[in-house]
Amino acid sequence: MRDAYRSDLDAITDALVEMTRLVGSAMARATTALLDADLALAESVIAADDQVDALYRQVEEQALDLLARQSPVAGDLRTVVTSLRIVADLERMGDLADHVASVARRRFPASAVPAELRGTVLEMGQVAQRIVTKAGSVIASRDVASAAELERDDDAMDSLHKRLFSLILADDWDGGVEAAIDVTLVGRYYERYADHAVSVARRVVFLVTGERPARVTS
Amino acid sequence: MRDAYRSDLDAITDALVEMTRLVGSAMARATTALLDADLALAESVIAADDQVDALYRQVEEQALDLLARQSPVAGDLRTVVTSLRIVADLERMGDLADHVASVARRRFPASAVPAELRGTVLEMGQVAQRIVTKAGSVIASRDVASAAELERDDDAMDSLHKRLFSLILADDWDGGVEAAIDVTLVGRYYERYADHAVSVARRVVFLVTGERPARVTS
Repeated sequence: MRDAYRSDLDAITDALVEMTRLVGSAMARATTALLDADLALAESVIAADDQVDALYRQVEEQALDLLARQSPVAGDLRTVVTSLRIVADLERMGDLADHVASVARRRFPASAVPAELRGTVLEMGQVAQRIVTKAGSVIASRDVASAAELERDDDAMDSLHKRLFSLILADDWDGGVEAAIDVTLVGRYYERYADHAVSVARRVVFLVTGERPARVTS
Repeated sequence: MRDAYRSDLDAITDALVEMTRLVGSAMARATTALLDADLALAESVIAADDQVDALYRQVEEQALDLLARQSPVAGDLRTVVTSLRIVADLERMGDLADHVASVARRRFPASAVPAELRGTVLEMGQVAQRIVTKAGSVIASRDVASAAELERDDDAMDSLHKRLFSLILADDWDGGVEAAIDVTLVGRYYERYADHAVSVARRVVFLVTGERPARVTS
C-alpha cells in the first residue's frame, strides 16, 4: 500500500512538471506571437491549451482516486491536497498564455505592442520563462532554495510591469487608447502568470517546511 | 461517524456561504468607493479582506481535518474537494473587490471612472451583487436551477465589459490614457469576479449532477 501510494504520487508530480513545461512553452510562444504579430503561432498556442486542460483533469482525477483508495493522513494528505492547488495554478497559467496569444490574434496583422514597449514585453516574457522553469524544479525536487529565487524573479516581473505603465503614461507617448488597453491587459497577464508560479513554489515550501505561504494578492 | 461527518461538512458549507456574503459586501462597497471617490470606504474594503482570508484558511484546515479524520470516499470525497476549490474562488473574489477599492484609493481625490462610464460601472457592480448572491444560494441549497441563471448574469457582465471598451474606444472619448488603464483594469476585475462566481456554481452543479463544468477561460 505504501509503495502504491508513492507511485501514484510520483505520477501526479510528473504530470505537474510536464504542465510547467507546457505552460512555459505556451508563454514563450505567445510572447513571440505578440511581438512578431505571428498569427499562426498565436493560434497554435491557443489550440495547445487543450493539452494543459486535459492534464489538469487527469491530475484532478488521479488525486481524487488516490484520496479515495489510500486515505492518506498528515503530511501525505497535505501533499495530495497541495497537488490539487498547484494543478489549478498551472491550468490558469496556461489560460494566461492563451490570453496573450489572443491579444496577438485580435490585433493581427498589426502588432499589439508599440515599438517603444517591445523591449519591456520581451523581458517580461523572459522572466516568465525563468520563473516557470524554477517552479518546475521546485515541484520536481522540493528545492526550497529555488523557491526563494523565484520570489526575486517575481519582483523583477513587478518592476517590469510598473515600467510598462510608466512608459504608456509618459507625456511623449502617443500610442493611443487601443494600444493602452492591449498593453494594460497583456501586462496584467504576465504579472498574474508570475504570481501563480510564485504561488506554486510557496505551496511546495509550505509542504516542506510547514511554513504557511504569504498570500498572493495582486 | 456519519453524523460527525455531516456536521463537519455543514460547518464548511456555512463558512462558504458567509464568505459569499463578505465578498459580496466588499464588491458593493468597492463599487461605491470607486464611483464616489470615497477614500475611507475604499480603505475599509481593503482592511476587511483579512476576514475573507481568515475564513479561507479556516475552511482549508476544516477540509483537511475532515479528510484526515473521516477518510470520505466517492460523493463525500468529491464534496470536500469541491469545497477546497470553491473556497479558493471566493478568496480570489475578495482579492478582486480589494483591487477595485485599491484603484479608487490610488486616484483619490479624483474618481477613477469618467462621468460617461459611471452608468456602465454601476451596472457591473449590480450584476456582481446578483451573481454572488446566487452563488451563495447555490452553495447553501445546491440549487442547480439558480446556477443556470447565474450563467445568464455572467453573459450580462461580459456585455457590460464589452460596452466599457467600446465607450473608451469611441472617437469622441477624450478621457486620456490614465483613465483608459484604470477602466481596463477595473473592467477586468469585475469580469473575473463574475467568472469565479460562475466557477463556484459550476462546481456545485458538477457535484449534484456529475456533469463536469465547462472551463472558465476568460
